[in-house]
Amino acid sequence: MKIITARPAQDTGAQTKGALTRAAILNVSLELAASKGLEGLTIGTIAERMRMSKSGIFAHFGSREELQVEVVREYFRRFEASVFQPALLEPRGLPRLQRMLDLWMQSRIRELNSGCIFIAGAVEFDDCPGAVRDELANSVQIWRTALSRAIEQAIKVGDLRKQCKPDLMLFQIYSFVLGLHHDVRFLKQPASIKLAQQSIQKVIDENRSQP
Amino acid sequence: MKIITARPAQDTGAQTKGALTRAAILNVSLELAASKGLEGLTIGTIAERMRMSKSGIFAHFGSREELQVEVVREYFRRFEASVFQPALLEPRGLPRLQRMLDLWMQSRIRELNSGCIFIAGAVEFDDCPGAVRDELANSVQIWRTALSRAIEQAIKVGDLRKQCKPDLMLFQIYSFVLGLHHDVRFLKQPASIKLAQQSIQKVIDENRSQP
Repeated sequence: MKIITARPAQDTGAQTKGALTRAAILNVSLELAASKGLEGLTIGTIAERMRMSKSGIFAHFGSREELQVEVVREYFRRFEASVFQPALLEPRGLPRLQRMLDLWMQSRIRELNSGCIFIAGAVEFDDCPGAVRDELANSVQIWRTALSRAIEQAIKVGDLRKQCKPDLMLFQIYSFVLGLHHDVRFLKQPASIKLAQQSIQKVIDENRSQP
Repeated sequence: MKIITARPAQDTGAQTKGALTRAAILNVSLELAASKGLEGLTIGTIAERMRMSKSGIFAHFGSREELQVEVVREYFRRFEASVFQPALLEPRGLPRLQRMLDLWMQSRIRELNSGCIFIAGAVEFDDCPGAVRDELANSVQIWRTALSRAIEQAIKVGDLRKQCKPDLMLFQIYSFVLGLHHDVRFLKQPASIKLAQQSIQKVIDENRSQP
């Protein structure tokens, strides 16, 4: 049995300071990764932005890869908190699915200036096996599974037609979000925000049960 | 008036050799860019693969950026030759549009192992103004304009419905191709090839004129 002892009081200050510094490094890294990509994250740049030494950064994150993995995890925690968790307050079925999609689109549109770590990371790491790729693919799959489950529940409760194919619906909706990111960020065509919203709504509507 | 003189015969051999070396460098660079991205192209790696010195590479391409731009141009020339030009042999309207989409999908599927320079480049360079980004966006826009024109012609000749919206149709089709690339390369889900084909066909079918 492991005996848990109370930590000595004099450590608390240092620990709090350490946790705050770690959180600040993660915050700066998230910003950098959004604009420069996860591959653009270097300990040197972060140290410069934080006005810390490189070894100061390494005291909190053992390696560049560990930092990249933690950035993906933190990004996913924020994504879950802003998109997935609020949608769970809606009843199962179309209301929950629709709320997930609305919040997802809102977060995508909010991030069109900075860039999405998942979408950019998918291209950066598609040919690079390793811990960062695994963490990215894992996060994206958790979100896709949540969307699939919401579609299946909407079929089960009768909001969507029985003939509706969850894998096809997920493929189409996810593709429209990728299209939005591509057109607005790369081609500088903000008109695609409306086209993406229309396209997603169309997929929902054509799979809706007839009353 | 500029007087064009015949080049001396003794130069031809050297010129041919130079052109062949340039083409070989471009070929190696295209392969590298497909797997590592345009940002992954370095003169050092290319020199190593070509068993040439770095200055030997610089004799053909003045800078890394010039080489990246030439890679985009060469990729686009090949794309035009394999996708766009054969489709022009089909009559205007749905036959030509359908052939463009079929050949495009075939080239995407063929390149799923190596990676697509346009799709990867869109993410790599979305936040990097400069000559490479301009060349990439320009190539993508030429292809999108060709697709739009084919859709408009199909409406004009009566193959597609008058109510059909070319911008929405283009957004949806392009999104499905991005979704295919994402799912197969990043998530390793080859089942999405079929989902992409079904989705594109569905967009065509629902916009088809009723006989």
